[in-house]
Amino acid sequence: MLHCYLEGLPLLYRKSVDTLSPYVPGFQPAMDGSVIKINSNENPYPPSPKVKELLGGFDFRQLRYYPDATSQPLRELIGAQHGLSSRQVLCGNGSDEVISLIFKVFFEQGDTVATPYPTYTFYKSVADIINVKVAFVDTAEDFVIDLQGLVNTGAKGIFIANPNAQTGRLLPLQSIEELLNRYNGLVVIDEAYIDFAGQQSSAVHLIGAYPNLIVLRTLSKSYSLCGIRVGFCIADESLIHAMDKCRDSYNVNHLSQIIAAAALSDQPYLETTVERVVRSRDKLEDELHKLGFTVYPSHANFLLCKPHQRSAADIYNYLKAQQIYVRHFDSPRLSDKLRISIGTEEEVESLLRHLRQYLGSDAAAHT
Amino acid sequence: MLHCYLEGLPLLYRKSVDTLSPYVPGFQPAMDGSVIKINSNENPYPPSPKVKELLGGFDFRQLRYYPDATSQPLRELIGAQHGLSSRQVLCGNGSDEVISLIFKVFFEQGDTVATPYPTYTFYKSVADIINVKVAFVDTAEDFVIDLQGLVNTGAKGIFIANPNAQTGRLLPLQSIEELLNRYNGLVVIDEAYIDFAGQQSSAVHLIGAYPNLIVLRTLSKSYSLCGIRVGFCIADESLIHAMDKCRDSYNVNHLSQIIAAAALSDQPYLETTVERVVRSRDKLEDELHKLGFTVYPSHANFLLCKPHQRSAADIYNYLKAQQIYVRHFDSPRLSDKLRISIGTEEEVESLLRHLRQYLGSDAAAHT
Repeated sequence: MLHCYLEGLPLLYRKSVDTLSPYVPGFQPAMDGSVIKINSNENPYPPSPKVKELLGGFDFRQLRYYPDATSQPLRELIGAQHGLSSRQVLCGNGSDEVISLIFKVFFEQGDTVATPYPTYTFYKSVADIINVKVAFVDTAEDFVIDLQGLVNTGAKGIFIANPNAQTGRLLPLQSIEELLNRYNGLVVIDEAYIDFAGQQSSAVHLIGAYPNLIVLRTLSKSYSLCGIRVGFCIADESLIHAMDKCRDSYNVNHLSQIIAAAALSDQPYLETTVERVVRSRDKLEDELHKLGFTVYPSHANFLLCKPHQRSAADIYNYLKAQQIYVRHFDSPRLSDKLRISIGTEEEVESLLRHLRQYLGSDAAAHT
Repeated sequence: MLHCYLEGLPLLYRKSVDTLSPYVPGFQPAMDGSVIKINSNENPYPPSPKVKELLGGFDFRQLRYYPDATSQPLRELIGAQHGLSSRQVLCGNGSDEVISLIFKVFFEQGDTVATPYPTYTFYKSVADIINVKVAFVDTAEDFVIDLQGLVNTGAKGIFIANPNAQTGRLLPLQSIEELLNRYNGLVVIDEAYIDFAGQQSSAVHLIGAYPNLIVLRTLSKSYSLCGIRVGFCIADESLIHAMDKCRDSYNVNHLSQIIAAAALSDQPYLETTVERVVRSRDKLEDELHKLGFTVYPSHANFLLCKPHQRSAADIYNYLKAQQIYVRHFDSPRLSDKLRISIGTEEEVESLLRHLRQYLGSDAAAHT
């Protein structure tokens, strides 16, 4: 056989790929007992025991079959839980796949979408790939979202994470409704963290009234199921139908479909873990205040906070050396802050102990 | 709250979506003991017992963490199994996701890709969404692929399923190499069924020599793992790097990553099940000949065959009434044929029994 390396091969991939900065996930340390990983907004508590039960009884031979191509039983369950039809629900391989799908279906090269800054960085990663422009609209000093600014961009669609990624700030439902009343482009409300804010704040209540609204959800955060990659969106039937035509046929694998259904069915467990996380968040907020941090009001399972005694980068590195991983974004308006996911009660205690030690001894060193 | 339905809302999704014909998966009957499902090329044997073992020992609490974002351990295993580096491997949520990704990364609106007809219909489904044209190049009467015809289209890329979907026909490795020697666009060889043809036929042997080659694989067929949605591709490091920048960050969920690794590690089991399937395929081919079918030479886990006594649609419906599901495509050159996936020895026997009864009694009715 002749083996040759073709000379002068044309650039095979799209030019736009070269300049892409892909989404950077949080660092994933090897987990041993002493590591505290509070950098990716994972839930510190395990998934519902119904998941354990399900896996214990699972017949591995089922895996030889294709999964349900339309995630029908899962979509029916989700529909029923929100008083909607399964035709208003689409499931994806994590809400990231649903976001990618939204870009593919609703936006073309040269279109613009608007989103607050800061927010979930993945929107821009996806937009860049297909040459859709992202108009970032700065949030206020306290990270409140500028809705009029978003509308003023003239963008074809608006993406809002609510509570917002990175900041935890919640946009009240009434504001979302006001936005929908004066803007008829596509409005995507990404509710990855909504369970920590309370269901009453969810834009799902507006489905049926606004055919240009898509509400995104994930099982990753409140249901402790990052590992299975299941997200979904809820929207008008016509939008779901368009998206359904464009998704990969078997986009949610079998185990993830049934694990998601088991977890969604256990609402009492969800409520208990959410309550614990919210209690720890409130406690951590208090204690960070006492340590001299500015803490931004969060309705999510993390806190964005700004230290004053030492730089955010220094604290990040100090904690990392103690095997405590928090998140530090080297980006405008965030580089002087830390984003701390809410761990277990013990993890929060341990974090605070280390912070007191570091900042206390530091304070001492400066006297 | 004011609830209003916006009048005169602009068309929110891309115009191209309206005219899409999405990929149609094989019918999924509710499985009870009496159903024989040989319509989706699923493997009739269960996955490796290593998968059962893995699931038995799996700690469900792990699911609260994000999966490995780059599927690193799995990619290392795949690389090692082919004497390649993990940097030449990319994993996806089924090979369908990898196919979608290839279109996203390598082709733009207005580009053309060429592929034989018939073949896996999903290529066109994906291309349609992003307005990439598909030039179908008819295969010969016996379904041999017309390589010169593919090159002559002037397309920017060529997709070949090998063995080919729907037909089972194998293109010899030498022909693929000849193609690569005279065509410098992207060449994608989709080897979903290659294990049933023998590894020596795989284009993976050409990786390293041709930087414009992508080889696609899946765990769905030979490894009996349709349910987990794991596929991968092998290519030059520069192509993998470009694709890696454009995929969703956590595209392969945790359980699927470790199940795939367990199955890939059990090569003796793979060989045993492949051998059984190939033996049944050979037997079914013989028996269909005896029943008067034309059977096309297949190197996959299915047979394409053309009945002569009754129409393919009649036989399809008769078998369906007996709860035996085979595949009938209502498309040019296929509507007079049936595609039958290879079942267990018992399933093949049962299929043959029903065919003999139907065609025998039919023959009798016509005398």
